[in-house]
Amino acid sequence: MSQEYRVAVVGAAGFAGVELVRILLAHPRFRLEAITSDALAGAPLAQAYPAFADVSDLRFQSNAEAELTDFDLVFLAVPHKAALSVAPGLIEAGVSVVDLSADFRLKDPLIYETWYATPHTAVDLLAHAAFGLPEICGDELAAAARDFSAGTAALVACAGCYPTATSLAAYPAIAQGWVAQTPIVVNAISGVTGAGKSATERTHFCFANENVEAYGVGSHRHTPEIEQILGRPGGVIFTPHLAPLNRGLLSTVVLPLAADASPSSEEVREAYANFYGESPLVSVMETGRWPKTSSVAGTNRAHVGVGLSSDGSAIIAVGAIDNLGKGAAGQAVQCANILCGFDQTCGLAQPALPI
Amino acid sequence: MSQEYRVAVVGAAGFAGVELVRILLAHPRFRLEAITSDALAGAPLAQAYPAFADVSDLRFQSNAEAELTDFDLVFLAVPHKAALSVAPGLIEAGVSVVDLSADFRLKDPLIYETWYATPHTAVDLLAHAAFGLPEICGDELAAAARDFSAGTAALVACAGCYPTATSLAAYPAIAQGWVAQTPIVVNAISGVTGAGKSATERTHFCFANENVEAYGVGSHRHTPEIEQILGRPGGVIFTPHLAPLNRGLLSTVVLPLAADASPSSEEVREAYANFYGESPLVSVMETGRWPKTSSVAGTNRAHVGVGLSSDGSAIIAVGAIDNLGKGAAGQAVQCANILCGFDQTCGLAQPALPI
Amino acid sequence: MSQEYRVAVVGAAGFAGVELVRILLAHPRFRLEAITSDALAGAPLAQAYPAFADVSDLRFQSNAEAELTDFDLVFLAVPHKAALSVAPGLIEAGVSVVDLSADFRLKDPLIYETWYATPHTAVDLLAHAAFGLPEICGDELAAAARDFSAGTAALVACAGCYPTATSLAAYPAIAQGWVAQTPIVVNAISGVTGAGKSATERTHFCFANENVEAYGVGSHRHTPEIEQILGRPGGVIFTPHLAPLNRGLLSTVVLPLAADASPSSEEVREAYANFYGESPLVSVMETGRWPKTSSVAGTNRAHVGVGLSSDGSAIIAVGAIDNLGKGAAGQAVQCANILCGFDQTCGLAQPALPI
Amino acid sequence: MSQEYRVAVVGAAGFAGVELVRILLAHPRFRLEAITSDALAGAPLAQAYPAFADVSDLRFQSNAEAELTDFDLVFLAVPHKAALSVAPGLIEAGVSVVDLSADFRLKDPLIYETWYATPHTAVDLLAHAAFGLPEICGDELAAAARDFSAGTAALVACAGCYPTATSLAAYPAIAQGWVAQTPIVVNAISGVTGAGKSATERTHFCFANENVEAYGVGSHRHTPEIEQILGRPGGVIFTPHLAPLNRGLLSTVVLPLAADASPSSEEVREAYANFYGESPLVSVMETGRWPKTSSVAGTNRAHVGVGLSSDGSAIIAVGAIDNLGKGAAGQAVQCANILCGFDQTCGLAQPALPI
Repeated sequence: MSQEYRVAVVGAAGFAGVELVRILLAHPRFRLEAITSDALAGAPLAQAYPAFADVSDLRFQSNAEAELTDFDLVFLAVPHKAALSVAPGLIEAGVSVVDLSADFRLKDPLIYETWYATPHTAVDLLAHAAFGLPEICGDELAAAARDFSAGTAALVACAGCYPTATSLAAYPAIAQGWVAQTPIVVNAISGVTGAGKSATERTHFCFANENVEAYGVGSHRHTPEIEQILGRPGGVIFTPHLAPLNRGLLSTVVLPLAADASPSSEEVREAYANFYGESPLVSVMETGRWPKTSSVAGTNRAHVGVGLSSDGSAIIAVGAIDNLGKGAAGQAVQCANILCGFDQTCGLAQPALPI
Repeated sequence: MSQEYRVAVVGAAGFAGVELVRILLAHPRFRLEAITSDALAGAPLAQAYPAFADVSDLRFQSNAEAELTDFDLVFLAVPHKAALSVAPGLIEAGVSVVDLSADFRLKDPLIYETWYATPHTAVDLLAHAAFGLPEICGDELAAAARDFSAGTAALVACAGCYPTATSLAAYPAIAQGWVAQTPIVVNAISGVTGAGKSATERTHFCFANENVEAYGVGSHRHTPEIEQILGRPGGVIFTPHLAPLNRGLLSTVVLPLAADASPSSEEVREAYANFYGESPLVSVMETGRWPKTSSVAGTNRAHVGVGLSSDGSAIIAVGAIDNLGKGAAGQAVQCANILCGFDQTCGLAQPALPI
Repeated sequence: MSQEYRVAVVGAAGFAGVELVRILLAHPRFRLEAITSDALAGAPLAQAYPAFADVSDLRFQSNAEAELTDFDLVFLAVPHKAALSVAPGLIEAGVSVVDLSADFRLKDPLIYETWYATPHTAVDLLAHAAFGLPEICGDELAAAARDFSAGTAALVACAGCYPTATSLAAYPAIAQGWVAQTPIVVNAISGVTGAGKSATERTHFCFANENVEAYGVGSHRHTPEIEQILGRPGGVIFTPHLAPLNRGLLSTVVLPLAADASPSSEEVREAYANFYGESPLVSVMETGRWPKTSSVAGTNRAHVGVGLSSDGSAIIAVGAIDNLGKGAAGQAVQCANILCGFDQTCGLAQPALPI
Repeated sequence: MSQEYRVAVVGAAGFAGVELVRILLAHPRFRLEAITSDALAGAPLAQAYPAFADVSDLRFQSNAEAELTDFDLVFLAVPHKAALSVAPGLIEAGVSVVDLSADFRLKDPLIYETWYATPHTAVDLLAHAAFGLPEICGDELAAAARDFSAGTAALVACAGCYPTATSLAAYPAIAQGWVAQTPIVVNAISGVTGAGKSATERTHFCFANENVEAYGVGSHRHTPEIEQILGRPGGVIFTPHLAPLNRGLLSTVVLPLAADASPSSEEVREAYANFYGESPLVSVMETGRWPKTSSVAGTNRAHVGVGLSSDGSAIIAVGAIDNLGKGAAGQAVQCANILCGFDQTCGLAQPALPI
């Protein structure tokens, strides 16, 4: 008989939260029994999100109502700062936490405090937190899984959406030793779900539609996270953009070649294919083909394409994910799968709509 | 041990065809072993539709190559006329056929010939064909299922996209005897996948985007099909429209009340809820709420909302489906499930992305 | 020397208001000298709407600040009820008013009070108000123009967006005496600017995008306005829909033919062409061609297509406008042109972007 | 009396061509008398592009029919290679040419032949061609204007869309001497009109919608053009992307600071504001604000934003244009204005739709 775990989603009314709900409702090994939202407490899930009509009878509970310490695993789909106030109590109560917020991602609390302009109130948990990006930080997750199976509450800090797409595109070239120490230039484009469920001028259809813009130039909080994953403190120039689509995130990374590196584009492609050989959810495109966000929308998959710049001085690597999937909810479930000893693709294998 | 059937998709490169492929690859009881496309013969599925990268190794075969008579069941996702030339041979060879084209939908070949301007070359099969709209024409499918289980090749003519959404919205009111004999007015809006994969001015992004238009006014070929399902020859005024989205079809039907009928909106809602009580894939909205196509996109589900016009003279019923799902590929698989004695929702239960 | 008038826009921060600003800034005969918005008072226009960077130095004023009684003409781009509180004072002060709200559209205050659920506090002005739909209610505007030229403050109640597109499509057939007394069925589709500037779930990009839905079914407040223009009290079944585009409104009207009427589609087309022979901003499509909203987006133009239903029992007429143009701001300026004795197309002649 | 010139557009059926037609029809000083398209010869403009219904009676002529040598000025909106075969004859006949193709942009024919893989058959004209990017290459246009006023046929090679947005963003920093000699990284995003009118899989609504992708990575032909304008042979790493909107192009340029340069973001902003002080169609955003393509769609305007990277090592400059406006047709008319001695904004001053 296969093991099942009881799970809850805190912050289930937001976009990442409700995507978690969708994935967990169909997951063969997790039993989703509580979804919380203070704003929607009492309301049926299917009323807020009619896609669930005749699919689920779940209702939102307030955070206070939900007896979160009863669960095996709690997913936190809350803004930064909110996780700082919830996670410690759960961990202490022996409940494992998969956190989608930024609160436990940065190893150095000073960097957190600089970029998020708020004190880090759970510094002691940082060393315990496993960074949730399985294809690159698998060791941390393996350690967390050992804790979990030994009965110790684990804490996973899932990677952000931009850091995920960017690192999947950039990391293998760096691991290969091909990249110079000059700054890496990252330009990424996100769909509007990345801006969250709040109705604002930025997320108003008529302002977002038929428009492309850069935002957070020189100041986006995912910058230090990318630097941490890639081991490049202060060495990443990151500019995010918003484009008129719901789901999808494309990161185009320019990696200047080290003086002694001159791989052909086929060699680059092969190195990437090898790097992701054991990663069933990352596909490396054939040479000359480039990923489309539509090919991974609604999934936990990533597509990566690589080549050389026209002047031969840099590798150009492009990563495509669904910002709510591999960039948030899907990745959280993938990490939870690893934590619980399931196959990492459990409940996550379906492809995107082909059109 | 559960029974499995070997199936093929003819015309798998088109939009309905590739959606069939997606559904069948994940279906627990059908084993998809051949996909055909003369245009793409030899090409990997994942090359034409990169969503399938690292998901499926299938390649397109030419129609000639594929030994279609070896299969238990063949899905035809081809244009009208093409099914007329393929289906008879398969039926004769004992292979059941689920046809997504219009060729076997109209019971009266003269009506077919009038609207499609081509001779019907397989008139003898018409009586054998079950109309594929399970919630409304379940008896025909039950008969086909008996044939199939008795070893006789069955033929299912799946309902078109507009007829499906329209009939799901209109039929219960008519069955209740509430509707006058004056014409029913149907206005429907389809996403652009409904216009097919051919690259034309109509399907060009820059012409379709930021535009809404009516088309086929007074002449759309789904008109006689709607009339047949609703039992209203010459009594349907149908106007389809195109809107800038990929998937989704909304049909708004105005049903004039018979002189002796004056149901309240709650009574109308209740009659619909009863009518669909045994139909797990059709949800009737609460009074005062109306369906959104986004709530069923990518699924085989239908959402139906009903109410009264402001002057109280008519029922207004609105049906929402995914034109490629419940309007095409999903419905075909639902019919195939019924044919094969599986639960009708087998492989079709997942909800839409909530956002 | 050509006469110029000094004008102000009240409620200039909303979508209709800012479109008025755009048109008036380029208008050769109106001098726009004040734009008001209590919410944005003090802010530069170009900050709220960067399209005006280096185009206009105007700043929003509060309604209190703007000395509205100093102007020749004031445009009110405010919600209903708000115009009731502003217009009477202006008229009394001798300032002509072009009102885009619903407050003075309905001739019968009881109908206003029923549909808008608020008392009409300026009933005495109703007889004075000219209905602003020049192609159909030209006489009322001509009378208002005589008042204006005689130095009496005029009041124009501009038609709503749905009533404009619907009436332009329906009126000529009714005027011809071709339409039966049974209800006219109107289905219309609007872009999201029609839902206004407020950031809500309805206007959130991720909810509006890739979605079509009906709303206000059996209850939309434009119903009595359409009935009034067409002279059909209680005889209009109107269902509006929302589609994912910024600007554009398409109204498809089914007009049942009277027993003694049987025009050919060419005769229908010719009657429409004659009806609009003197209306430079309305184009009647060739037989068999249907209007696209994209062809009129950003303009004050309307395109109308007409034909017969497949059963020959009804005329189907389709009208396309920009809901913010001919459906709001453009029409207001057209009415103001007429009021002031200018050519009605003054400042309004430019076509849509062709692509 | 103001001078008028008779002009023709060759290749008027394509997207840039028809945008030229739109601008020229409303231009106070150019009289558009011929539009050519071999594919649509004989067809009314308003049939192919219904936005022109009741606006213009022009019909397309074949290239052979149109007596191009009779005009004062001919705009070529044709693909590369086609201009090579048309322009020399016109110049020889004394007709000035404003060419929107790539054929005369690159000063060095070898670079042209390398990137376009075709011989340059009019090398002698290259020295005569003025590069059409008024804000940066004004001297070349001034020389062409002197030729024109002296009765000598001038040839303008208008800048491409990506080079325009990129150079407007990058040039002032380079002119200031702030930029290191290491490669400049350019990432740009274009709307789908940039892919042209041909109906292909790339331009199919259902493939382009809800998708973002990179293309032409390491190989896009605008690379050498950007290098030429910026004086950086082999020093530009350029990656273009496609996003789901009709019109709009955003170019984000990362300019590494020279070792001795450390301007503050305010100093950078001020340098840009000064640089564009005499350029009425380029607006520099306030510090901390970034351009949106929607703010310039449908216009010949450019918005530029500048700032510093988070590590302070680079200037990040972002330019927004309409790829068909300032990126093609608008710029061509701006160049023609300069050629003819008109104000450069003549017929080009209108702002974008604010929403």
